[in-house]
Amino acid sequence: MSLDVVSDTRCFGGRQITLKHESAATGTPMRVAVFLPPQAERGPVPVFWFLAGLTCTEDNFMQKAGAQRVAAELGLALVAPDTSPRGEGVPDDPAYDAGQGAGFYCDATQAPWSTHFRMRRYIEEELPALLGAELPLDLGRQSLCGHSMGGHGALTVGLRQPGRFRAVSAFAPIASPMNCPWGEKALGLYLGPDRAAWRPYDACALIADGARRAEILVDQGTADPFLDGQLKPGLLEAACRDAGIALTLNRRDGYDHSYFFVASFIADHLRWHADRLKA
Amino acid sequence: MSLDVVSDTRCFGGRQITLKHESAATGTPMRVAVFLPPQAERGPVPVFWFLAGLTCTEDNFMQKAGAQRVAAELGLALVAPDTSPRGEGVPDDPAYDAGQGAGFYCDATQAPWSTHFRMRRYIEEELPALLGAELPLDLGRQSLCGHSMGGHGALTVGLRQPGRFRAVSAFAPIASPMNCPWGEKALGLYLGPDRAAWRPYDACALIADGARRAEILVDQGTADPFLDGQLKPGLLEAACRDAGIALTLNRRDGYDHSYFFVASFIADHLRWHADRLKA
Repeated sequence: MSLDVVSDTRCFGGRQITLKHESAATGTPMRVAVFLPPQAERGPVPVFWFLAGLTCTEDNFMQKAGAQRVAAELGLALVAPDTSPRGEGVPDDPAYDAGQGAGFYCDATQAPWSTHFRMRRYIEEELPALLGAELPLDLGRQSLCGHSMGGHGALTVGLRQPGRFRAVSAFAPIASPMNCPWGEKALGLYLGPDRAAWRPYDACALIADGARRAEILVDQGTADPFLDGQLKPGLLEAACRDAGIALTLNRRDGYDHSYFFVASFIADHLRWHADRLKA
Repeated sequence: MSLDVVSDTRCFGGRQITLKHESAATGTPMRVAVFLPPQAERGPVPVFWFLAGLTCTEDNFMQKAGAQRVAAELGLALVAPDTSPRGEGVPDDPAYDAGQGAGFYCDATQAPWSTHFRMRRYIEEELPALLGAELPLDLGRQSLCGHSMGGHGALTVGLRQPGRFRAVSAFAPIASPMNCPWGEKALGLYLGPDRAAWRPYDACALIADGARRAEILVDQGTADPFLDGQLKPGLLEAACRDAGIALTLNRRDGYDHSYFFVASFIADHLRWHADRLKA
């Protein structure tokens, strides 16, 4: 078995599991957290992927979002990957917004990052194949969500792989990394100065370049300290309007950027995904 | 105002607040986390206290138990104190099971602990008076819960103050600190070698010495690694049986000691408390 079980804990009648494996994509050991609902004991279940934000690991969503209760009710598996390769041989940045914990879900092309920072290949190819081979997951029914940098990940991976995901949503996503300090720093480091190479990693640029989904759901807190400087949901709103993508953008009065915000609305997202996964 | 607001975050329509204050009981700054449900905007609400376990701060329960959703529905405030005094001038133990993060909810009498480790007075007297004066809390309707060392805290504080709390419950409590390694170490350090002085800090001894409540609710996972060596719910079961206390002890098959266990059953506890707080 290529997946090692780090922990396996009962939760809402299902199993909360942390797995570890050697990744060909990143060239490092990687961890991933999986919640299997009780229904998985009887056969494969649909998969709700969640991509986390800056500084997070595979743990944050599973420990703080309170998603397992509704996932157990709806019969959805939850999968939360780590946000970057990690370890002593892996390059890092002294700040929190690049390097370890800040992979931005892209395949780096620039030294020293290109050796290990291949999170796009990891999320899009390696990890689903690995988990699908070992766990009772129905890869014909996948959906994707994320928070902040992981909201950027959910939007871009979901726009590049429209057939793989029946639903895509995000909490407080970085709507256009090409147009904010977090994204400009990270994409510049990982992909170099040619901004044309950044476009596959920018939801708004992908849409401008022709990527389509029928619909997207986004929740955004109005008291989020990163709203105007980094997240800029108005750019996604404009891109979706121009492209005829049905974006539901819920502005949540007084909510900030924390998992207390995610927890408050995760049940709505899970039910919205389940409707589309089971249709 | 004697309470300083460290953070104030919207959560399930209510407010998730971290407060800081100078404590007369411990002689240190102390932090406490409070969730105010939406109903608190219209007037005082009942209070559900939660005492956390070894290594925890005021954050663990609020971030990991997913209690706010049901508390918002039921109109209960949640209050989670820290588990000990902290800081540079505060004595500590090299292990996790004594000193900072391990106050055991007692008033230490032995040097060097007696200067700051006065968590009994803090929880029983200072903190409720302070919070009640500043927040929309109905101190006529309080209830108490806790996990592990905090389960011990909930049982002992609740047995010593039967009139203050309309309901007392616990997750995986240390049922009898006098009869397990965690308790023997901590109570020995804080209270000295005379075991008679430990009895007010042992739920089973308190009951044997005449303390009474009509009923107690306990949930305990059967796969908890501390079950036989530290927690020993059978001792509480025997003490309650002898005393005519109606103990409901739910043994949860396959659950461990983590907050994934607490999260799975916290809604049951909150509803059980609410029934008694609103009766």
